[in-house]
Amino acid sequence: MLRFTPLAITLALAATAGVLSLPALAAEPGRVGQTIIRNGEQAAIKGSDTIFTGTVRIDPLYSANNDMRSSGGSVTFEPGARSNWHIHPVGQVLIVTSGVGRTQEWGKPMQEIKAGDIIICPVGIKHWHGASPTTSMTHISICEEKEPGKVVEWMEPVTDAQYNGQ
Amino acid sequence: MLRFTPLAITLALAATAGVLSLPALAAEPGRVGQTIIRNGEQAAIKGSDTIFTGTVRIDPLYSANNDMRSSGGSVTFEPGARSNWHIHPVGQVLIVTSGVGRTQEWGKPMQEIKAGDIIICPVGIKHWHGASPTTSMTHISICEEKEPGKVVEWMEPVTDAQYNGQ
Repeated sequence: MLRFTPLAITLALAATAGVLSLPALAAEPGRVGQTIIRNGEQAAIKGSDTIFTGTVRIDPLYSANNDMRSSGGSVTFEPGARSNWHIHPVGQVLIVTSGVGRTQEWGKPMQEIKAGDIIICPVGIKHWHGASPTTSMTHISICEEKEPGKVVEWMEPVTDAQYNGQ
Repeated sequence: MLRFTPLAITLALAATAGVLSLPALAAEPGRVGQTIIRNGEQAAIKGSDTIFTGTVRIDPLYSANNDMRSSGGSVTFEPGARSNWHIHPVGQVLIVTSGVGRTQEWGKPMQEIKAGDIIICPVGIKHWHGASPTTSMTHISICEEKEPGKVVEWMEPVTDAQYNGQ
């Protein structure tokens, strides 16, 4: 059962709930404050050829931290590059930030994806994603973890026939 | 205690774990498949003046769904615009995607933020974020929820003096 809490409803509720008067908590001893990771502080990572076909760069964004169990990275696939088939133990959201790419859920047709598209992949769904044959594709990937650091189970490479929707 | 699971370590572990041979799950009856939300399908929302100062547009990205408790939106602040002070019940990550802006944690100095910066705001930290006085700022906001739809507790507006770091 797909459970959606539309952001519009969340915002509408927040707006109608009025302005709360809560104490400032920043001064509490031992409390972790807000952190800023500056552009350029996190080195890019070359995608391993054990889990990707072709040239892939991962730009880390943020890790699970404090009470948050999600983590995010920006992944750039050069033309023709794609992930192996894989499954996420909690789920994944992809926000396509540039280019044109492809994705496929196991047993279903390959689909083209473009900048601005959002891909929601629930727990346990076997899928892959990557660039188109002639253009690059960059997406932000948001995953959540049950166990520390475990957000994906990697599987076999995507064949050329699968990549080409044959 | 700040808990970080560096993405680099996650990826390294994934790469060394080898390729798993897991069954395809897509065909299981009742299982929700992968969903694509196409660019243009989600209407922009005007930021309410009960929780923002100035002109703010929210472009919804994704809602909490299936096993995922995070949700995300892209928020564009026109020059001078900013959120009210607020607290997140689980936490928030901001990914600045364009422009130059400002943020502040209660009791600490106002800080400038620029495209490519990441702001990590833990549970319970009172903060605000917005554009600079002369340029717009857009960030993706990722929040997580404990109760359905509840990702923020709104508080009082940011005064001009606070906004200007005085």
